[in-house]
Amino acid sequence: MSIIVQKYGGTSVADADRIRAVADRIVRYRENGHDVVVVVSAMGDTTDDLLMLAQEISPVPEPRELDMLLTAGERIAMSLLAIAVNARGCRAASYTGSQAGIITDTRHGQAKIVEIRPKRIRESLEAGNVVIVAGFQGLSTNYDITTLGRGGSDTTAVAMAAALGAEVCEIYTDVDGVFTADPRVVRTARRIDRISYEEMLELAAAGAKVLQSRSVEYARRTGVRVHVRSSFTDEPGTWVVGEEQDVEVGMEAALISGVALDDTEAKVTLEQVPDRPGVAATIFKAVAAEAVNVDMIVQNVSHQGTTDLSFTIPRDEVPRVESVLERIVKEIGAPRYTVDEQIAKVSLVGAGMKSHPGVAADMFEALSEQGINIEMISTSAIRISCVVRAGDAERAVRAIHTRFGLDGEAPRAEG
Amino acid sequence: MSIIVQKYGGTSVADADRIRAVADRIVRYRENGHDVVVVVSAMGDTTDDLLMLAQEISPVPEPRELDMLLTAGERIAMSLLAIAVNARGCRAASYTGSQAGIITDTRHGQAKIVEIRPKRIRESLEAGNVVIVAGFQGLSTNYDITTLGRGGSDTTAVAMAAALGAEVCEIYTDVDGVFTADPRVVRTARRIDRISYEEMLELAAAGAKVLQSRSVEYARRTGVRVHVRSSFTDEPGTWVVGEEQDVEVGMEAALISGVALDDTEAKVTLEQVPDRPGVAATIFKAVAAEAVNVDMIVQNVSHQGTTDLSFTIPRDEVPRVESVLERIVKEIGAPRYTVDEQIAKVSLVGAGMKSHPGVAADMFEALSEQGINIEMISTSAIRISCVVRAGDAERAVRAIHTRFGLDGEAPRAEG
Repeated sequence: MSIIVQKYGGTSVADADRIRAVADRIVRYRENGHDVVVVVSAMGDTTDDLLMLAQEISPVPEPRELDMLLTAGERIAMSLLAIAVNARGCRAASYTGSQAGIITDTRHGQAKIVEIRPKRIRESLEAGNVVIVAGFQGLSTNYDITTLGRGGSDTTAVAMAAALGAEVCEIYTDVDGVFTADPRVVRTARRIDRISYEEMLELAAAGAKVLQSRSVEYARRTGVRVHVRSSFTDEPGTWVVGEEQDVEVGMEAALISGVALDDTEAKVTLEQVPDRPGVAATIFKAVAAEAVNVDMIVQNVSHQGTTDLSFTIPRDEVPRVESVLERIVKEIGAPRYTVDEQIAKVSLVGAGMKSHPGVAADMFEALSEQGINIEMISTSAIRISCVVRAGDAERAVRAIHTRFGLDGEAPRAEG
Repeated sequence: MSIIVQKYGGTSVADADRIRAVADRIVRYRENGHDVVVVVSAMGDTTDDLLMLAQEISPVPEPRELDMLLTAGERIAMSLLAIAVNARGCRAASYTGSQAGIITDTRHGQAKIVEIRPKRIRESLEAGNVVIVAGFQGLSTNYDITTLGRGGSDTTAVAMAAALGAEVCEIYTDVDGVFTADPRVVRTARRIDRISYEEMLELAAAGAKVLQSRSVEYARRTGVRVHVRSSFTDEPGTWVVGEEQDVEVGMEAALISGVALDDTEAKVTLEQVPDRPGVAATIFKAVAAEAVNVDMIVQNVSHQGTTDLSFTIPRDEVPRVESVLERIVKEIGAPRYTVDEQIAKVSLVGAGMKSHPGVAADMFEALSEQGINIEMISTSAIRISCVVRAGDAERAVRAIHTRFGLDGEAPRAEG
């Protein structure tokens, strides 16, 4: 029998009514003859509430204990969902990450899955159960409870789908799929029918929030077909698949997938950095030692032996990195650094741009027509990102969306 | 190094401030050179809240899943407490029932501990940690999560103390110890300094709520010394120990320990039951098959071949037992049964009454002086219980308390 993995996010199970609606959907799939494995996140704001409680007690909660605390959220959601499915006369059993055989490394708060041992899950499926698995959590190789980081439930779902050889991994969410741009910013944004792993990765990295990057990487590595769709309708959503994979919506891939906006970063500039070998290494090793993720890096050409070096980091990590920057500028002999939090990153993503020259030029022109200044540029084979003033960002997204013919026919109704 | 087990109930960890206060106490013990193992209940009303959530989804939640759900409560409390202790610079680690090696049978909702495998707890203590263990929960021999039933955290604490050979099991609560009567009913009630396991068992069974009977049985079987005390003060509370055990408060045991009131039962009477062998067995086998706990049983002398037979059961189990009673009266040929919910049970407990004749007579006289009618009587070697009208119960408790010289000198201030 074919196995379907379904993942429901926090909004899909936010209260008793929604949990019952999710149970109805699960039972329908079961009655259609599928083996169903459900991965569930914590209800609504539970994780944030628990986090606040921990911070009320300590500003820097012990990571091992914080993981123990946060995993209570999925435990509550999964058992309530199992109760709801059982109440419909359909047998269901819930399993913690540990019971489901999700083995991780020991990095509390952002553990990586190192192995899945799905023996118990298989036995439960064979016994006729709908299997419900806690997302976001695992058991470390030290036998401690770990969490996979924000959005980790997506990764749990893809990893379970890979381990079980599932037909599809359905990611249920509160939107209808992946869009050509955020519908709140671009009212004419359209749902994408299919998108490649690579494009989805670039979109996710560029700020699209619908899927966690790590889960897309995992799906690409294991070839799991992912279907992102709404938990409030039965409409198909967006298929995230390999370029060579067939899906029911067998249409040709578009030139451009979409436009993403990321307004969570800050730009750090080190001015008049001595332009000699080893300086960049010194800087980024020191930043990496603080476990801060650097995104874009731009270095201008040298003038009189010095250069300006800029990079972007998550805005909420600025406080953590400031003391490192103080040390660095002294060490390398630069006069000062500046931090600019009023920036946003606008990205255009599409596998088609690999074979179409001029995409970058079109994008820059669309921005210049709006009088929007570009402060940093970075590109990959299928993505172009520009840093602009934060206040210009939404206008930039709309201009690019229109320029590349992504606008739908009519504004979407508010869901 | 001597090991101390401390158990904190839900009121002691009801919010962040109280959790911090408990952490302060734990750190103080640790600094005094003790190895400390802490057993903790869910915060405040968490368990009730989770139960209501489950019942909103299904009136009869699947027991396996209900246990999975409820155990989230202790998980939250224990990790927050570990965070609080760590924040004081004192290393602490929390462990679920499963991680602590608490192995139970498979009866969800009222599992019994069958074994404790404290290897991981010992290793954590040896590594210098304060060890925090989730109360109320365990792992079944089928590897499913179980709960021990209401008040199960007391049992967890005593069982851990037994398995680790702890010097003492301290039960922290929101009262100062075990009292000669409920201070809300008898304002002159006094705290008992020491009480034997047997008397404590009788008091608990007779309605005193401070300790769960099962935990006292466990302590008696394993010889664990239990100290029931307030989490809001440093005053000593009540030692629950074997009659032969010495405690710091080495005073002689009193004749009478206390007076208990239980207003949670109902009286069932089968009228004109044919007085022939096997009838009682038929009745109580049928009731036991519904897993209803029968407490007192009284059968009057026979008149013309029939007798009235009365017994008490928990009032909230009356609906469940009614259909059985319908069937029984037909089967044994009795004309009818009645259920009386307006009763209360008043009990006098004391090991001293074994060697003092006349205690029962004194108790009955105290009641008759108040014009209180006794409806049922049952006795053990160290307890006398009388069923009276519910409306007379508090007056009965006060009369007996005074008659046996239990009144303290002055009314206690409200805590």
